[in-house]
Amino acid sequence: MAKPLRIAVVGSGAIGIYYGGKLAAASRDVHFLMRGDLARVRRDGFRILGKHEDIHVEKVNCYRSSNEIGKCDLVLVAVKTTSNADLIELIPPLLDEHTILLTLQNGLGNEELLAKHFGAQRVLGGLCFICLSRTSRTTVEHDYGHITIGEFGRTPQPRTHAIASEFNRSGIKCEVVENLVLERWRKLVWNIPFNGLSILAGGIDTAAIMGDEELRRVTLALMNEVIDAANKCGYALERSAVNQQMERTMTMGAYKPSTLLDFEARKTLEIEAIWGEPLRLATSAGAALPRLEMIYSLLKTLDQTMRRASKSEHHL
Amino acid sequence: MAKPLRIAVVGSGAIGIYYGGKLAAASRDVHFLMRGDLARVRRDGFRILGKHEDIHVEKVNCYRSSNEIGKCDLVLVAVKTTSNADLIELIPPLLDEHTILLTLQNGLGNEELLAKHFGAQRVLGGLCFICLSRTSRTTVEHDYGHITIGEFGRTPQPRTHAIASEFNRSGIKCEVVENLVLERWRKLVWNIPFNGLSILAGGIDTAAIMGDEELRRVTLALMNEVIDAANKCGYALERSAVNQQMERTMTMGAYKPSTLLDFEARKTLEIEAIWGEPLRLATSAGAALPRLEMIYSLLKTLDQTMRRASKSEHHL
Repeated sequence: MAKPLRIAVVGSGAIGIYYGGKLAAASRDVHFLMRGDLARVRRDGFRILGKHEDIHVEKVNCYRSSNEIGKCDLVLVAVKTTSNADLIELIPPLLDEHTILLTLQNGLGNEELLAKHFGAQRVLGGLCFICLSRTSRTTVEHDYGHITIGEFGRTPQPRTHAIASEFNRSGIKCEVVENLVLERWRKLVWNIPFNGLSILAGGIDTAAIMGDEELRRVTLALMNEVIDAANKCGYALERSAVNQQMERTMTMGAYKPSTLLDFEARKTLEIEAIWGEPLRLATSAGAALPRLEMIYSLLKTLDQTMRRASKSEHHL
Repeated sequence: MAKPLRIAVVGSGAIGIYYGGKLAAASRDVHFLMRGDLARVRRDGFRILGKHEDIHVEKVNCYRSSNEIGKCDLVLVAVKTTSNADLIELIPPLLDEHTILLTLQNGLGNEELLAKHFGAQRVLGGLCFICLSRTSRTTVEHDYGHITIGEFGRTPQPRTHAIASEFNRSGIKCEVVENLVLERWRKLVWNIPFNGLSILAGGIDTAAIMGDEELRRVTLALMNEVIDAANKCGYALERSAVNQQMERTMTMGAYKPSTLLDFEARKTLEIEAIWGEPLRLATSAGAALPRLEMIYSLLKTLDQTMRRASKSEHHL
């Protein structure tokens, strides 16, 4: 690319800090939108700690409003899906005719939301394969970190490969996928059981789930339900994805899914993107999903119960 | 009955205090086996508080070992099912040739255990329809309280009606049922969804479950699975039991199931009696029970996780 991309990161949580920070550390022109703590971020920068890296982004361009950032070539959407309603006001100041929106969010429904409000032609989606935790306002620790991106409702375009190159040249392993939604379903084959069961079983990691004969059986059954769901929705996700995900999980050790980390930090859970939207889409398409329905309804109520409890503690 | 029955109560938790205490308050010859706090119980007696009663059992015959009690005509088995292994040593000193064992415990498998070790001919089972909480070592508060009893593997005998009379004359509404195991399954139609979902959804009562559209749908689906399970096991539980239980629940208001009270008190949960044993029996008989399997495996692990967490707190 001739002219350097002007990049905005909307949402400076763990995902925004990691992917935006890696791009910034590789001297890309990155601008972070964040709600607060600007003085602290300006003073300390960002720190990214991984098994094989310790990156300090000293100078962070951060802003409290999208108007201050202005028009960009690429917007990384990195807010939690539970804040999606905010995007409708946050994004417009960043757009010109050619601005690309790349959502790095979890689950289903995010590309659709962006497409509906800002036009489908500018929307891409990315799947983040990363274990991240924000250990302070300005520091994230991670493991893994690769990403796959694809176009919303189209096969890959030249721009898709160009963006993948930008990531790869910034030290973020990035692949382009043919069918984005199919890959989202494939990732859900993992997230739907592990993110949910880890919370409902009292806060346990993937190794504990894999080591429990009954929970492992439930995991397999849930994975097969997700494949049924994808197939009913018209995505030819192959049955062998179950074994692939189980084998991958075996190599991960004791891993805490992102939703469990959110739960432990008493944050709002991404229930609709990970469980609700897939359930609704597949149920409308005629799938029978008894386990997904149960895990969804339990998590939804648990999330509400915990936040009410947490709120009443704050009132003490 | 000519000679007054000599009655032992094995397990002096909430159930033992309530049913044994009502019999003692009606001047029956009742002897309580308990692990500790004998001095306190001897000093304070038992107190039973209900909407329409406030009973004080001043003089309680209590013992630390079954040998001190000796042979009885009727033994009320009121330990939590999680302590069933202890019964094998606790019961023999109470037995003569004619001693009747009446288990007032939850779920499936309890009559079988007693029959196996002490002979099927002496075993009866009782279903307790009561909301009980022990508010101090010697005080229980309750709502409802009626009981249905039946013979294990037989239709009712003269002795079944005689025992029911003893309860009724002591102010405990008691009915005799034709088929005890069928009635146990009918009670599980309620306990399996409500006791489990109330815990897994973060500690909510029956009114909260009934008021949540998705959880209510899961409840109905679980109830239908329990009926499938009973039918596969050869018990002709009619489908209309679902609506009966839902209607009964509507009248109960905000009710906390016993297992939720145990969970809140960090006690071991009666997972095998309420979920595990029904699941195993019905799965062996060929039933497909996806929701029951999931609720069982989640509760089992949650129980273990919570007790480990609780233990490590004790070590601090």
